[in-house]
Amino acid sequence: MDQVASINLEQYSLVYNAFSFTIAIMGASTIFFLMRSFQVGVNYRTAVTITGLVTLIACYHYFRIFSSWEASFSVANGVVKATGEPFNDAYRYVDWLLTVPLLLVELILVMRLPQGETTRKCIKLGGLAALMVILGYPGEVATNPTTRLIWWVLAMIPFVIIVYDLYEGLKESIKSQPESARGLVSAARWLTVLSWCFYPIVFVLPLLGLTGGAASTAVQVGYTIADILAKAVFGLFIYLIAVRKSEAEEGSRHAAGERLANAD
Amino acid sequence: MDQVASINLEQYSLVYNAFSFTIAIMGASTIFFLMRSFQVGVNYRTAVTITGLVTLIACYHYFRIFSSWEASFSVANGVVKATGEPFNDAYRYVDWLLTVPLLLVELILVMRLPQGETTRKCIKLGGLAALMVILGYPGEVATNPTTRLIWWVLAMIPFVIIVYDLYEGLKESIKSQPESARGLVSAARWLTVLSWCFYPIVFVLPLLGLTGGAASTAVQVGYTIADILAKAVFGLFIYLIAVRKSEAEEGSRHAAGERLANAD
Repeated sequence: MDQVASINLEQYSLVYNAFSFTIAIMGASTIFFLMRSFQVGVNYRTAVTITGLVTLIACYHYFRIFSSWEASFSVANGVVKATGEPFNDAYRYVDWLLTVPLLLVELILVMRLPQGETTRKCIKLGGLAALMVILGYPGEVATNPTTRLIWWVLAMIPFVIIVYDLYEGLKESIKSQPESARGLVSAARWLTVLSWCFYPIVFVLPLLGLTGGAASTAVQVGYTIADILAKAVFGLFIYLIAVRKSEAEEGSRHAAGERLANAD
Repeated sequence: MDQVASINLEQYSLVYNAFSFTIAIMGASTIFFLMRSFQVGVNYRTAVTITGLVTLIACYHYFRIFSSWEASFSVANGVVKATGEPFNDAYRYVDWLLTVPLLLVELILVMRLPQGETTRKCIKLGGLAALMVILGYPGEVATNPTTRLIWWVLAMIPFVIIVYDLYEGLKESIKSQPESARGLVSAARWLTVLSWCFYPIVFVLPLLGLTGGAASTAVQVGYTIADILAKAVFGLFIYLIAVRKSEAEEGSRHAAGERLANAD
């Protein structure tokens, strides 16, 4: 938990509204993914359900983050004052500790790799993701810029391994996807790499000359945009891939059924 | 209800964030288990539904525990002060009184033992589990170490009987499980024994020289980890066992159907 910097009314309101916007997006996405999970093919239901759990967990945490932000400041007659209550940065890290491994699991599940490979990849990438989040936290709460930089470098090691693994690993598996889903899988691959790169950039913003209220605002709004891209928008891609692949498999099952019928 | 010890900001924040983390895990697990309960074979739906009820009850109690913790302290400008409001320990015992018998029931149901044995085991182990929780409570709220120790010893009697029964009883029934589920049942058996042993260890921590804020922090974080393992992680094993056993039974039903068709 951190003491907050002094910020002006525009900065306070921007962050406040960005948090509320995110609660609405994550809540609506949750209902969409959970309801639609019954409509995709049986092999993709777990992936789409987990997509809904990720946005549910994020929705809960944005409620908490919003309340903590509100409690840290009082606004009267256009002047924002710190109340002395700390703003709890840790909510983001607690959220990521759960959601980042789950995001990787939903991507791996929707690929439908052979069972042994699925388990191996889930354990490897999920574990690295948890390690990355744990290494990032001491840097986030550090007041000393050197400490922030050291933990950033350490967290970047699992980060680079995961992003490289996804980028290369997905390239291979794109070929094995039905043609109708290839474009979406390729887009999901790029969205993963780009949305993930937001996080380390936002993390180092306070080291790049931004200070005080401007730095807090940039970090909060930056992480919020990254979370919307990496969870809700990414989840929509997972859902669409599940729909296309379900349709492709349904089609080939029908074709197989027709061949059997003709053989009789 | 207990007067709280004085603790520092790091200890306060660690417990605070551990509680919030647990709310998120239990909530997401509940949605997952309840939604997936419709997807497993009809014989395993009750077990998976009860798994979701256990995490739902825990989610509710962690909301209460979180609020009680928040109300017991005030934080201003980095200093934590007790507000004089008591922290309600009893929430945990009320939770366990409901969830521990249910956890045993979900494990017994997913085994699919003969009906008479299922009823007998549910009554015996469920009753012992309730007795164990009731005997633990007077020790938890005792300020005198000797009283704490006496109730600990009494609660350990049903504890040892349950753990021994599960350990030995499950060993037998592992042989009757389909091969694809045996590894998981064996892992669930070990997870039960190990996660359960956390509780009596955490209970005696204040007797082992830990005092004040460090003791409170260790007890709260320790019980939280034990609850996550014994409810959400254990629930995931129950779910996976239900999936594997449903698949095995589906497979043998198809095979039986084919044999019938060939006999015509």
